[in-house]
Amino acid sequence: MKNIVLFGAGRSSIYLVEYLQAWCVKNNYMLIIGDKDVQYVQDNVKEKDNLQFQTIDIFDHEKVEALIKISELVISLLPAALHMHIAHLCLDNHKHMATASYVSDEMKAIHDDAINKGLIFLNECGLDPGIDHMSAMQLMDNIKSKGGIINSFESYCGGLVANACDGDNPWKYKFSWNPRNVVVAGQGAPAQFLLDGQLKVLPYHQLFAYTKDFTIGNHGTFEAYPNRDSLKYRPLYGLDHIATMVRGTFRKQGYASAWQVLVVLGLTDDTTKLYYPQGTTMQQWLTTYMVHPYQDLKNAVKTATHCTDADIAKLEWLGLFGNEVLPLYEGTSAQILEEILKIKWLLLPNDRDMVVMLHKIGYQLNGENKAATSTLVIEGESNTHTAMAKTVGLPLAIACRLILENKISQRGVVVPVDCELYTPVLEELKGFGIHFIEN
Amino acid sequence: MKNIVLFGAGRSSIYLVEYLQAWCVKNNYMLIIGDKDVQYVQDNVKEKDNLQFQTIDIFDHEKVEALIKISELVISLLPAALHMHIAHLCLDNHKHMATASYVSDEMKAIHDDAINKGLIFLNECGLDPGIDHMSAMQLMDNIKSKGGIINSFESYCGGLVANACDGDNPWKYKFSWNPRNVVVAGQGAPAQFLLDGQLKVLPYHQLFAYTKDFTIGNHGTFEAYPNRDSLKYRPLYGLDHIATMVRGTFRKQGYASAWQVLVVLGLTDDTTKLYYPQGTTMQQWLTTYMVHPYQDLKNAVKTATHCTDADIAKLEWLGLFGNEVLPLYEGTSAQILEEILKIKWLLLPNDRDMVVMLHKIGYQLNGENKAATSTLVIEGESNTHTAMAKTVGLPLAIACRLILENKISQRGVVVPVDCELYTPVLEELKGFGIHFIEN
Repeated sequence: MKNIVLFGAGRSSIYLVEYLQAWCVKNNYMLIIGDKDVQYVQDNVKEKDNLQFQTIDIFDHEKVEALIKISELVISLLPAALHMHIAHLCLDNHKHMATASYVSDEMKAIHDDAINKGLIFLNECGLDPGIDHMSAMQLMDNIKSKGGIINSFESYCGGLVANACDGDNPWKYKFSWNPRNVVVAGQGAPAQFLLDGQLKVLPYHQLFAYTKDFTIGNHGTFEAYPNRDSLKYRPLYGLDHIATMVRGTFRKQGYASAWQVLVVLGLTDDTTKLYYPQGTTMQQWLTTYMVHPYQDLKNAVKTATHCTDADIAKLEWLGLFGNEVLPLYEGTSAQILEEILKIKWLLLPNDRDMVVMLHKIGYQLNGENKAATSTLVIEGESNTHTAMAKTVGLPLAIACRLILENKISQRGVVVPVDCELYTPVLEELKGFGIHFIEN
Repeated sequence: MKNIVLFGAGRSSIYLVEYLQAWCVKNNYMLIIGDKDVQYVQDNVKEKDNLQFQTIDIFDHEKVEALIKISELVISLLPAALHMHIAHLCLDNHKHMATASYVSDEMKAIHDDAINKGLIFLNECGLDPGIDHMSAMQLMDNIKSKGGIINSFESYCGGLVANACDGDNPWKYKFSWNPRNVVVAGQGAPAQFLLDGQLKVLPYHQLFAYTKDFTIGNHGTFEAYPNRDSLKYRPLYGLDHIATMVRGTFRKQGYASAWQVLVVLGLTDDTTKLYYPQGTTMQQWLTTYMVHPYQDLKNAVKTATHCTDADIAKLEWLGLFGNEVLPLYEGTSAQILEEILKIKWLLLPNDRDMVVMLHKIGYQLNGENKAATSTLVIEGESNTHTAMAKTVGLPLAIACRLILENKISQRGVVVPVDCELYTPVLEELKGFGIHFIEN
C-alpha cells in the first residue's frame, strides 16, 4: 500500500481529507494525517477507512522526514510560515508537495531545484489564492480565444457568514477562518492597484474607508476593499498592459466603515504590548485611545473618527462602551480586540458560513467595450463542513489526485493558472456545488 | 602625548571638536577624528592644533581597533546603528566610550561587563536625549529637596529654524538635522503616555492631529506632539507612580495639522517602493494617493483628510499641486517626500537654526498644587555653527572632559540623570549661552 501524508489537521482540512480518503480506498493508498492535534479531523470526517492519524511535533525533524520518505505526495495545510521546513525535506527526498498558500520568496527560490529533480511544488491551490486564479484565468482565456482584448480586471473574495445566520449581529460577520488574519488584515504595507491607467496607493489607515459595492443576485450587496499589491498579479495573469487591476476582499455592507473606526482609533495595532490592571472594563480600554478631553465617549469617538451613528451602534454591539471586563489584560491592541471578537463573532453550532467571489473583466471585442462578470456564492453545510473548508480543501484535493494519477506535466514551483490544472479542477468542483455564474 | 578618538565627523560634531581641541592643547592630548569623510569638520572648525583628521572606513576593523588602542577615550557620533561595533572594541581594549544616542538593548547588555572592567559607557548625553535628562532631573531634584511631591511631568524639545529665518515658508520649518528622521518621525509604534492617571495610546496616523500649544516668552507659540513611549522614562526619572507623563516634540504652530495631511494620505509611507515614469510631476504623484474620483485636486485632499485651507496652502507651497517634476522617480513615498522637502526646507547659508526645550513639572508642596516651568531657547550662530550642533556636542564634550579628568565615579552603561554629571555639565553649558529660564 502506498501513502500520502498531510501535515496540518485544522478546520480547513475536512473536505480535503474526505475527498482523498475516498480516492485512497479505491486506489489502495493510505492517507496519513500528522499534526500536534488531530482530534478535530478524527471526530468530524465521515469515513475513516485508509486514514491514519498521527500526533506529531512538526519540528520533530526525524519523524516528519520518516513520514515524507514513505509517501508519494506531501500536502501541507500548516501555517504558511512552516511550509519551507517541509518543502526542503520534500526536495531532499524527491517528493511532490502541495499547499493552498501564497508562494513565498523562499518557495520561489527552490523552483529550479524542483524542476531539475522532476518534482512539482503546487501552491496557491485553495480558495483565495486558488479558485480565484483558476476561475479568472478560465474566464479570461475564453474572452481571449474569441479575440477579446482585456483592459480591466477586478476580483474580490470574502469568507463570510450565511445571510440566514447573521442573527442580531450588525457587523454581519462571524469567524469562518483564522480570527487573527481578520484583525490584522491589510497591515504592513499600503494597498496598491491600478485605476484607469493610474497607480493608486492606499495606506492601511484609509483602507476600509475606500469600498466599492456589488450586488450579487438575491444574495445581497457586498462591499469590497483592496488587497495589498494587486499589481504583482499582472505578469502572472498575462495582463502587463492593463489599465485597471484591483484585487480585494468582500464584507457585507456596513462592515468596512465601522472597522475603519477601530483602525483609526488604533485598536488594531499589533506592534506594542499594553498592560492593563485586572478588572479593566471594555469602556476603560476604549478610553485609552481617546486622547482629547471629552464629555461623552460616543461623541468623542464620532469626533475623532468622523463616523456615523450606524458605526457607533456596531461598536456598542461589541460592548466597547460597556462595563464588561476585558477578556485579555496584557497584549497588543490587536490581540485584545481579537479576544473580544472571538466571543462576539463566534460561528455558533447551528451557523453556516458563506464564501462569495466575483470577477469583473472589461474587454474590447470587435471595437466594442464589453464586461463579463462571474460570481460564486456557496454556503456551508454545517459549522464543521464549512464553505471555507470546502473551497480551500477540494481544489487542493482534486489537484493532488491529478498529481498522483500523473496527469499534470508541469514541474517546479507552480500556481494553478494553466488550463492543464484549472480545466479538470473547475469541472470537478461543479459536482460539489462550486460553480460560477457568468453574466 | 595621549589621544582621544572621535568616530563620526558629521554636522553635529563641530562644537564638540572645538571644545575638546582647546582642552587637548592645554593638556597635551591629540584628538583624532576618523570618518569616511572628514572634510566638513576640517573646513569648519576654528582651530586645528592638536587635531588629526583620518579618512577611514568604519568597517575596517583593524584600523578602527588600532585607533581605539592608542586612545584614553572613544567618542562615537556615528549613526546609532554603528555604536555597538565600536563598543565591543572598547570593551575588548579596556577603553571608556561616550555617545549622544539612546541606549539600545545591545548597549544595555554590556552594562555588567563594563562595570567589571571599571569602564564607563556614557550615552544619551547630547540634546534630546541629553540636556533634556539633565535639566529635568536638576529641576525635579530641586523640587524634591524642598519636600515637593511630583505628580505630573511634561517635556518637549524641537530642532527648528530661527524665527527671523522663516522667510516665506509657511511650515516655519527647515532641516537642521537628519531629514530622514523628520520624515519618518513617529513611525513604527503608537505613542504611549499618561494623562491624569490614564494610559493613552495614539497611533501614528493620529499623532500629528493631537498637539498641545505652549507660548514661550516672546519666542512664539510652539505645538507639541507626543514621542513614542513616554512611559519607559518613569523608572529612569524615579517617577513610577506619576499620573501625567508626556515627552514630545516641538514644531512651530501650524506644522502638525499640515503634516497630518501628508500622513493620512500615505505620503510618509516607508514600507513600499513605488515606480514612476521619468517626468512624473508633483501633481501626478499626489494623484496616486487620491483613490476616489474627484473634480478638483485640492478639494479632494480636503475631503479625504478633513483639513483646512491653511493646510492646503502649505502643501501648495511645497509644489504638490504643481507641474514641477519629481526629484526622485523610484523610492518609497517617504523617500520621494524627503527629496522634495530637502529642496524646500533647505537651511540656506545665511539661515540660523533654533533649539527649543520646555519642561513642565506639576507637584504638591505643603498640600498646595504647584507647577514649575523651565525653558531653553537658543539660536545658532551660522549654518555650520548651529544650535543643534552646539546643544548636541557641548554636553557630550564636557562630559568627556570630566571622564578624562577622572571626575566621574559611575561605571557601566550610564545616562546623565545623576547630579555627579548633570551639575557640572549644566553649569558649564551656561557659559556657552545654554541656560534654562525657570518660572
